[in-house]
Amino acid sequence: MDIQQAAARAKEAAIRLAAVKTDVKNLALTKIAKALEERAEEIVAANRADLARAETEQLAAPLLKRLRFDADKIAEACTGIMSLVALPDPVGITLSATELDAGLELYRVSCPIGVIGVIFESRPDALVQISSLCLKSGNAALLKGGSEAVETNRILAGIINAAAIEAGIPGGWLALLETRDQVAEMLAMDESIDLIVPRGSNAFVKHIMDNTNIPVLGHADGICHVYVDKGADLDMAERIVVDSKCQYVAVCNAAETILVHQAVAAAFLPQMKKALEEKGVAIRGCEKTREVIDVAAATEADWATEYLDTIVSVRVVKSMDAAMAHINRYGSGHTDVIVSADRARGIRFMDYVDSGDVFFNCSSRFSDGFRYGLGAEVGISTNKIHARGPVGLEGLMIYQWRMMGTGQIVADYACDNARPFTHRKLEKDFR
Amino acid sequence: MDIQQAAARAKEAAIRLAAVKTDVKNLALTKIAKALEERAEEIVAANRADLARAETEQLAAPLLKRLRFDADKIAEACTGIMSLVALPDPVGITLSATELDAGLELYRVSCPIGVIGVIFESRPDALVQISSLCLKSGNAALLKGGSEAVETNRILAGIINAAAIEAGIPGGWLALLETRDQVAEMLAMDESIDLIVPRGSNAFVKHIMDNTNIPVLGHADGICHVYVDKGADLDMAERIVVDSKCQYVAVCNAAETILVHQAVAAAFLPQMKKALEEKGVAIRGCEKTREVIDVAAATEADWATEYLDTIVSVRVVKSMDAAMAHINRYGSGHTDVIVSADRARGIRFMDYVDSGDVFFNCSSRFSDGFRYGLGAEVGISTNKIHARGPVGLEGLMIYQWRMMGTGQIVADYACDNARPFTHRKLEKDFR
Repeated sequence: MDIQQAAARAKEAAIRLAAVKTDVKNLALTKIAKALEERAEEIVAANRADLARAETEQLAAPLLKRLRFDADKIAEACTGIMSLVALPDPVGITLSATELDAGLELYRVSCPIGVIGVIFESRPDALVQISSLCLKSGNAALLKGGSEAVETNRILAGIINAAAIEAGIPGGWLALLETRDQVAEMLAMDESIDLIVPRGSNAFVKHIMDNTNIPVLGHADGICHVYVDKGADLDMAERIVVDSKCQYVAVCNAAETILVHQAVAAAFLPQMKKALEEKGVAIRGCEKTREVIDVAAATEADWATEYLDTIVSVRVVKSMDAAMAHINRYGSGHTDVIVSADRARGIRFMDYVDSGDVFFNCSSRFSDGFRYGLGAEVGISTNKIHARGPVGLEGLMIYQWRMMGTGQIVADYACDNARPFTHRKLEKDFR
Repeated sequence: MDIQQAAARAKEAAIRLAAVKTDVKNLALTKIAKALEERAEEIVAANRADLARAETEQLAAPLLKRLRFDADKIAEACTGIMSLVALPDPVGITLSATELDAGLELYRVSCPIGVIGVIFESRPDALVQISSLCLKSGNAALLKGGSEAVETNRILAGIINAAAIEAGIPGGWLALLETRDQVAEMLAMDESIDLIVPRGSNAFVKHIMDNTNIPVLGHADGICHVYVDKGADLDMAERIVVDSKCQYVAVCNAAETILVHQAVAAAFLPQMKKALEEKGVAIRGCEKTREVIDVAAATEADWATEYLDTIVSVRVVKSMDAAMAHINRYGSGHTDVIVSADRARGIRFMDYVDSGDVFFNCSSRFSDGFRYGLGAEVGISTNKIHARGPVGLEGLMIYQWRMMGTGQIVADYACDNARPFTHRKLEKDFR
């Protein structure tokens, strides 16, 4: 497939898809789920071919694991699609309404962004998830999957595309690109792709962010901190540290560094060491930490490392200011936690820590679209514009200003003795 | 000034500025306005030096005009600053509140983006306006002005910076960069600059957009259309066409192309020609237009040209679909108008025209932050993410997720017999 042609078709389809009614989109999603389930055997067979080739090519075990797409994974993907059907349509919501003058009304109405470029590594479930999120939100999608999943991706994209078109979604809304060169081409297409959603390792996402002018929704790192304040409830701190570090070590919202106020270091560090070591976590401590507990030495590099493993770095800090300075310097703006008995200090921590998610007395692992109740998660963003932290469908939305007039011209509001604007807030929906 | 050092200081200042109280920011703005007025003579003298040099260097007349910053312009800039004082503080607004469980509450709270890079051509009023917008919204600003305004910019930045710091704004919040090389350096600083706001010609903005990975808030083109539908009130259409084209030709929301439904072409074109020619507008028409009125021939290039002058291109279209296709192909996603007697057709036009601003029966010239009642205008954006159309202070804002817990950990919500989330919407503010 020629990528320029696919992009041009996607752009046209996006304009029509933006106006497709909710029931058509929901019918399409339902048909997609049904088709995926009906054709599960074919999908698994295609995936088996990818797995066989990957084994021949001696792909690493974690990659093989991510590549696998079996009947359970298909069922899980379909459950995800059906939960999207249940969500309200994010398109066409009146975000604000203002009367400028009698018979001149301005509305801000939510609408899809347009064409989303999706680039993902081996995991085929990402293809299903992102394309259904795009469909529900009225966006066209250009997909580029990893070459190791080529057979699986091809059959999945084919099924999803056909089922959607059958339900009335405009053709061209979904295209699958297959060659590696096409990634570089995609990243250069800032005229036709409005947003890139990458799914893969940190290095992969960072590569994409560094090589495109197109906005990227995602995060490269998740260096999250738990700061244990002076006067904190140390049993609560222990529970939160253990959960933040150990509940699932391989994810971006797991803690990598624990900061401990010097006033509680002597009491807390031994208690924390025992709890973490019971979970098999290896501790690397700063000098002051090592004066209290016997652990390996942390180096400067540890503060900037996302282990994604059962390793944690620990630093004793003189003050909350020192903790916040550490987080703002070494953190990745993802999720940072304070455990403190003092709510005002918690709020001060939130005021001065420049991260998307800042928590008082709970685990960093709560930083997640489903736990937040967003309904669906498009991704987690460490951007400073558009969408930050866990992002639901609204991350794929923008708005359009719609003005309903009755013949007004600006000259009447601009000259001497001009008509004034009323700028009165209206409590009404567009239409 | 070393730009890396200025950026590092700005980043630190931004974190502190984000938490500065409203009254301190308003005091700073008041002091800035007062200082600018008190030192008006010095400013005018500095500007006179720039003007003299520019004349020696034979700068073009429109550039000279933009460079001039006299007592009237200073007074106007101060009025703008004082109107910002009157606006509500956009920082710290609770955008949503959700109970995840008893004693576990999630808030989405507005906060500044961080460090704004401002790059502008000759107009010194842009420096005053953007730096005060940044201050009100709690953002640090790195400014780079045109070399022709070096003396004016230097004294303005000095006055603004000193007055703000005197009021309690953290030092480093504002830095002025002066050499041309520093623009390229700024555009590469995606680690420390969160958003670029360019002010200048279309070519200038386009150059910036094409040469940075940093998000840019702005627009390169404003190719706006008025479409006159079949059955439209032709007197209303005439008024709207004349206002959209002529009320101020040199601005981005002026119309450049008029599309006329073939059913009204014979009646409307002669009437429109007379009205536009009375205003001194030269018409370039498509073949079908020229069958009805005697005007110059439009070429393909005309459809893609922003004249910013008393020239307009006119095309007769077979249908509203053809009009929408023309707009989506040649337009710049800025502002497009339909004049029609049929409200349902107006809404269909809005549904399928992919522009930030779509109007029914009113002039394209209404597309403006002040007319929209936004209070202050940061710019007009043709981006598809973050902010679109006229952008007020909210374009310089993002949000932070703040969770207030009482010791909760994810393990309790993840295992079998897990606690369920309540995900109950709360009607309460953070704090």
